[in-house]
Amino acid sequence: MQNILNEIASAMALKKDRGKVADYIPQLAAVDPNQFGISVAFPDGKILSAGCAQQLFSIQSISKVYSLTLALGKIGDAVWEKVGREPSGDPFNSIVQLEHEHGKPRNPFINAGAIAVVDAIMMGHEPKELLAEILRFVRYIAHDNTIAIDEKVAQSELATGHRNTSLAHFMASFGHLDHDIDKVLGAYYHQCSISMNCEQLAKSGLFLVSGGTNESTGSRVVSSQRARRINSLMLMCGHYDGSGEFAYRVGLPGKSGVGGGILAIAPGKASIAVWSPGLDEIGNSKLGTLALEMLAQRTGWSVF
Amino acid sequence: MQNILNEIASAMALKKDRGKVADYIPQLAAVDPNQFGISVAFPDGKILSAGCAQQLFSIQSISKVYSLTLALGKIGDAVWEKVGREPSGDPFNSIVQLEHEHGKPRNPFINAGAIAVVDAIMMGHEPKELLAEILRFVRYIAHDNTIAIDEKVAQSELATGHRNTSLAHFMASFGHLDHDIDKVLGAYYHQCSISMNCEQLAKSGLFLVSGGTNESTGSRVVSSQRARRINSLMLMCGHYDGSGEFAYRVGLPGKSGVGGGILAIAPGKASIAVWSPGLDEIGNSKLGTLALEMLAQRTGWSVF
Amino acid sequence: MQNILNEIASAMALKKDRGKVADYIPQLAAVDPNQFGISVAFPDGKILSAGCAQQLFSIQSISKVYSLTLALGKIGDAVWEKVGREPSGDPFNSIVQLEHEHGKPRNPFINAGAIAVVDAIMMGHEPKELLAEILRFVRYIAHDNTIAIDEKVAQSELATGHRNTSLAHFMASFGHLDHDIDKVLGAYYHQCSISMNCEQLAKSGLFLVSGGTNESTGSRVVSSQRARRINSLMLMCGHYDGSGEFAYRVGLPGKSGVGGGILAIAPGKASIAVWSPGLDEIGNSKLGTLALEMLAQRTGWSVF
Amino acid sequence: MQNILNEIASAMALKKDRGKVADYIPQLAAVDPNQFGISVAFPDGKILSAGCAQQLFSIQSISKVYSLTLALGKIGDAVWEKVGREPSGDPFNSIVQLEHEHGKPRNPFINAGAIAVVDAIMMGHEPKELLAEILRFVRYIAHDNTIAIDEKVAQSELATGHRNTSLAHFMASFGHLDHDIDKVLGAYYHQCSISMNCEQLAKSGLFLVSGGTNESTGSRVVSSQRARRINSLMLMCGHYDGSGEFAYRVGLPGKSGVGGGILAIAPGKASIAVWSPGLDEIGNSKLGTLALEMLAQRTGWSVF
Repeated sequence: MQNILNEIASAMALKKDRGKVADYIPQLAAVDPNQFGISVAFPDGKILSAGCAQQLFSIQSISKVYSLTLALGKIGDAVWEKVGREPSGDPFNSIVQLEHEHGKPRNPFINAGAIAVVDAIMMGHEPKELLAEILRFVRYIAHDNTIAIDEKVAQSELATGHRNTSLAHFMASFGHLDHDIDKVLGAYYHQCSISMNCEQLAKSGLFLVSGGTNESTGSRVVSSQRARRINSLMLMCGHYDGSGEFAYRVGLPGKSGVGGGILAIAPGKASIAVWSPGLDEIGNSKLGTLALEMLAQRTGWSVF
Repeated sequence: MQNILNEIASAMALKKDRGKVADYIPQLAAVDPNQFGISVAFPDGKILSAGCAQQLFSIQSISKVYSLTLALGKIGDAVWEKVGREPSGDPFNSIVQLEHEHGKPRNPFINAGAIAVVDAIMMGHEPKELLAEILRFVRYIAHDNTIAIDEKVAQSELATGHRNTSLAHFMASFGHLDHDIDKVLGAYYHQCSISMNCEQLAKSGLFLVSGGTNESTGSRVVSSQRARRINSLMLMCGHYDGSGEFAYRVGLPGKSGVGGGILAIAPGKASIAVWSPGLDEIGNSKLGTLALEMLAQRTGWSVF
Repeated sequence: MQNILNEIASAMALKKDRGKVADYIPQLAAVDPNQFGISVAFPDGKILSAGCAQQLFSIQSISKVYSLTLALGKIGDAVWEKVGREPSGDPFNSIVQLEHEHGKPRNPFINAGAIAVVDAIMMGHEPKELLAEILRFVRYIAHDNTIAIDEKVAQSELATGHRNTSLAHFMASFGHLDHDIDKVLGAYYHQCSISMNCEQLAKSGLFLVSGGTNESTGSRVVSSQRARRINSLMLMCGHYDGSGEFAYRVGLPGKSGVGGGILAIAPGKASIAVWSPGLDEIGNSKLGTLALEMLAQRTGWSVF
Repeated sequence: MQNILNEIASAMALKKDRGKVADYIPQLAAVDPNQFGISVAFPDGKILSAGCAQQLFSIQSISKVYSLTLALGKIGDAVWEKVGREPSGDPFNSIVQLEHEHGKPRNPFINAGAIAVVDAIMMGHEPKELLAEILRFVRYIAHDNTIAIDEKVAQSELATGHRNTSLAHFMASFGHLDHDIDKVLGAYYHQCSISMNCEQLAKSGLFLVSGGTNESTGSRVVSSQRARRINSLMLMCGHYDGSGEFAYRVGLPGKSGVGGGILAIAPGKASIAVWSPGLDEIGNSKLGTLALEMLAQRTGWSVF
């Protein structure tokens, strides 16, 4: 396996077309596109890595997996009154579907859906309390208390987030949000601004590999049925309108972020994190997807 | 396993709300909604069944899996110039996406996509020749030479198919079809009018269970990579705008038809066919989905 | 007035950017773009012209005004069960609106709406009979028995009309058409293939100038209220998604055709026909619109 | 004329189905639906009225005519870089069109368009300064210094305006707004909260009757061409997705507001204001429209 990872890292290092780094906030725009990292975490706690697997990056939308998991724990199936569970067929920030479907987002992984999930788990608390809870949860599942939020990223997101503000007010106009929008968005942006490296990210997915329990630490996170369902949502909706392509090429549940990270789950086998900041046109890591495609081919880990 | 199937069949027999039988043609409208069948075919050739697993029904859209497989064999990745591979987020017969995307269907399993696939594999032949080829192929993969087309169903489809005719002409207006539309639709409707029973249907999916080869007969159908990819498309797009729901509840690649049948694949384990003619609002078999959900829970066969 | 027309014709002759001639059928593609004609018909029967006002051209969508008028005469307000009377905000051949509104076209001047109107006035007759009636009607209102259909244009339209066929079948799938689609489209294309010159076209609009009656001939065509309403529909919907622009620049009810003709009505004053085959991006005559803008400025005939 | 107005007022008093009063803010919800007023202002300064023509009401979207006029005066045709001039075919608060057309509203009379117009005329000023200017302008054209803003209405709008906030942030996400959104919306809501009675409203439209100049006061407001163009926009877009219906039934340029008022212009003849708080499904005054239809029939003032 270490050989496979080394080969992948070497192959990626040679790639000329690395995609385009997200540039809507300075903190992301400044990231060097020539970086690539990969880590594979196994249920027994072993981790193998290649490339810059210790380099911190902004996990962005990958955080939506954590907040959905937390929401399912806190309010159970009531989550599905806030968001659907169908792929949207639209870009991550589209508002068209919301108008056609009376303010209810298609799934928890498009921006509107993730904002609605944050609203659902706020439950009257202040953003700080919610953030502390989210961070505690991420540290718990990744078994790493050093994981932190990059406050500068969060502030930049807040300053430039007209589209997300629009989505939130649009949902609110249908009575679909319960809390103050500034607070919900504040929590949402902070959640997106969690920094992790590939090793931490890979470890954070271990509970989805083994039926809801991180076997290496013994931490029970969700039931095995719920773990399966989260995986199904990642496969169906984890890459926006590129989810079909990811399923076709990689064949693993995965969730991408515009920071260039992807968390992929091979149920029963391993949790994989890749990171390369250059994105394709849809907003998913270009080399990250390619690396996962190679890994799936070499390992036969595709769920199909 | 036989016990599980018996229990499922018994549970289904007690269900009051069986959905609504498709009524757009008399041949489907006349089917008794109180029927239910299930068959599980294993790679070694063993088949277990419960309910009316010998009763023939119209496979309808399940045939789209066969024509896609045939198309990939005949023209390879050129298929993807005709159709995409993303879920559409729209109903099976929607035309909105076609207008927004210049006549190219999102995937091969919505009606427009399946029509485009038939056009792609016609390659100058007459509908009869193409149909003979499709039928030969289905008989080959299911290892059953008695499988036939129900001509009455085909004629009724032809007589009532305004929506599909509209889709075809719409694609043609973008130069997206190469053959005479009446011929393409004639072939398409005949393909949809293949009759099978649960046992035959389950056997027809065995090549997708074992990396492209029906192990029990030794027939090699597609490469293992291609088998995986067909499975991924079934999971992502096999139930129209209910695909996310099916993945969430069942967790298996599957393809439904308005005749009430569903073919589901548990990679490495078994091919499953269920049939119950009552449909949910989206057009997928209501009890069929429920039965597969029970089966997946009992067996743990979910890919997630 | 003759001076104004001469000046307009001279100004148009100097224009370099004349738009793009419709090229979807050879008969239209072959028309020399350097032609321009204008005729103004007054209620007393006087006609003034400039440019090639005797040159025949294909009136195309202008014919939709005639069939709507005929339909209102034959079935009255029942027309509004077949089509709405709102601008669509979409291109002439869009199908998106039809899907969102269950097969009912927004107005009688988009293609789908005009096809539905033809279906409404077919009333069990053969296309030939209906065409004879339409032609008789046009000859009557224009007071000119030489007006005829260009059969070659009609045949070409039939051979290339996938988009319109799609629209028709789409409406039929909602039960919105009563007649055989080939017959309806046959009649529709023949109606669009009427040839007229500017003088004939201007005369054909006189009944809309004077409250429903062609004063010069004494022919009563519709009530004055109905004449006003037809004018309102021409203003609101006569130039597809360029209707607002035409109202803003010209300020007169008008209907354009892809043959390059425009019929405009100055209520109480005159009926105006312009023709220049080059079209703008939306499909309206580029110089025709410009000429009408100049005429409206010089005469103060804007309804506003 | 006074007889006509009396008859209309009497007819309206008998109507049972008066539509539904806007209820999204308490100030509008509390208005008694049994009220009706009408005023007709003539170029010579004469005003005739019937019903409760002195009763103040919230003009709401009618104010969009004033801000557009002001914008054309301040920045001329640069207004058309901010908004288009086509009917949208969508409801007043739809966001779908904005996504499809990169954040540029179709016309200045849908909410998004009016917000963009306010942004365009803010030009670095504070909301208070802009409001003072708008109010000064309305008082000037209506020749009435008592016209004022209802601050309570403005505060309620601010508190409930999620949909408009969404529209504004959506436009801002395309870089389509130049000012702070809270300031723009503050000015927008205050503009909508101007209170007027029918007499004042009718007088405010006189400049559109007589080529841009209020003849009774001699105040020149816009050029005659610009007056015509504003009228054309009112006809095409003044009643949202009911504009076609209004043109068909009434045949006059008009602008409605959810407060139940409508300002209609009979070019060269008179400016008409009606008010009745009950709305139809689209959001236009039900009796107001009916009254204008009667008036247009009796007077023959339709522009068609």
